[in-house]
Amino acid sequence: MTFTEKLKASVQTNNSTLCVGLDPNLELLPKDIIKKDRTPTQQVSLFLKKVIDVTKPYCTAYKPNLGFFEALGPDGWDLFTGILDYIPNDKIVIADAKRGDISSTAEHYAKAFFEEYDVDAITLNPLMGFETLDPFLNDSSKGIFVLTLTSNPGSKDILLQKIAGGDTVSTHIAEQLNKKQQEAESSIGMVVGATKTEALEPVITPFPEAPLLIPGVGKQGGDITKLAEALENHQGIPLINSSRSIIYAGGNSDSWQKEVAESAQNLKKRLSTITERYV
Amino acid sequence: MTFTEKLKASVQTNNSTLCVGLDPNLELLPKDIIKKDRTPTQQVSLFLKKVIDVTKPYCTAYKPNLGFFEALGPDGWDLFTGILDYIPNDKIVIADAKRGDISSTAEHYAKAFFEEYDVDAITLNPLMGFETLDPFLNDSSKGIFVLTLTSNPGSKDILLQKIAGGDTVSTHIAEQLNKKQQEAESSIGMVVGATKTEALEPVITPFPEAPLLIPGVGKQGGDITKLAEALENHQGIPLINSSRSIIYAGGNSDSWQKEVAESAQNLKKRLSTITERYV
Repeated sequence: MTFTEKLKASVQTNNSTLCVGLDPNLELLPKDIIKKDRTPTQQVSLFLKKVIDVTKPYCTAYKPNLGFFEALGPDGWDLFTGILDYIPNDKIVIADAKRGDISSTAEHYAKAFFEEYDVDAITLNPLMGFETLDPFLNDSSKGIFVLTLTSNPGSKDILLQKIAGGDTVSTHIAEQLNKKQQEAESSIGMVVGATKTEALEPVITPFPEAPLLIPGVGKQGGDITKLAEALENHQGIPLINSSRSIIYAGGNSDSWQKEVAESAQNLKKRLSTITERYV
Repeated sequence: MTFTEKLKASVQTNNSTLCVGLDPNLELLPKDIIKKDRTPTQQVSLFLKKVIDVTKPYCTAYKPNLGFFEALGPDGWDLFTGILDYIPNDKIVIADAKRGDISSTAEHYAKAFFEEYDVDAITLNPLMGFETLDPFLNDSSKGIFVLTLTSNPGSKDILLQKIAGGDTVSTHIAEQLNKKQQEAESSIGMVVGATKTEALEPVITPFPEAPLLIPGVGKQGGDITKLAEALENHQGIPLINSSRSIIYAGGNSDSWQKEVAESAQNLKKRLSTITERYV
């Protein structure tokens, strides 16, 4: 099954375009998770498994964020493996790694994430040039999501700068990815932030078939109605990600799992105007 | 001791500006390293320790490239820890991780590399904006090297694009880093490729005090005489990196360690016109 087919099937089966971001921050774990006889890694493992248990009825994808796993040292990578094993098979797994490096290094990152950890997709950073994506483009069962327009204020620093011809760097990236897709086996998608819906159209227009990974609707404040409008003519499937506003929705409450579930369920519902276009 | 002081002391003690890049590729290991009773990780560990043994008289820094460690799976991170422990204390250790992400993720990457693994410096990717560097800038004993002008052909795709005002993205990054250094505790340096010495001057001029990490003189073919000229007025210390042309200099020869040593010694000598400016 190609990545695109798996993505489509997953959105249909789950009737959802929600992606839950797994950003396990030790300082934000619920108090019933934190026990002295558990190592930090065991605490995170337990927390993430409970989060997956209660959110899996509502989402179509999970996005483990590697920074949070790396911060746990070598144990964090065993944890990452354990969490990948725990995610149900009908979900898309996106390693949010934001890697980007020259040829032989990129080959090794591709080997790490597509062979060793066997995730469905990875986020990549294109700053060093579009050739750096090539080692990730030889496998039709895999996808990449390339940072194109991010949801943070700093996207103005480089991505929204205008280059010769009047395009922004973001739009230039989208145009080049669209070309690259013609020769690629793997599926090429884009990371485009939901906090800047007015900036979204020029970025997705040049690459109408790109699957999209869209952060920024939760804590970062992106507006779903505006997002749905901006995506109206886009053909590629969008996955809308929320991390902190779902997984920490319960705070330190005794019923935190219920609140996490409700938060995922609510966001799934609010995304239904988008989802129904793809099911 | 601040990072800048440690860097200066290391260049003086070792009388060298050579940085040896540790890119352990399983397909390029010498045959006497590959034995059936050794796991791939054990082979790499033995290889890198021998490389460190024979190159340490000639270099001032080591740059482990995380892609090659990650490709070994969770074991690769124990290996990374073991190699960090093995590197002599008078050397600068730069984690070539090229990370770059928003606030809370960046904080976790900083925790991983500056606390958990305790390296001296890390390479970072600024595409998502200059705010993403902030979590790495609170520790005067640490340094960052920000991708500014890379040595691969793809640097033309984004980094050498001209933005409003006529600067390239590379020069824009350098200008912003120079400003950022005024308020930072940590030392801010730049990664600038040696393959494009003609493009180097406009990039290093706006930030004359930046330590530089310079790849591209080995297999990638950068010219040291031209590099020395381009660096003539630069005040920050340059570390000139070579990876493959040193660590695989011996191929499958029985005397590979001798050839690795000679390769490092030769490059150290060829860099002496640059080194003597800083000792």
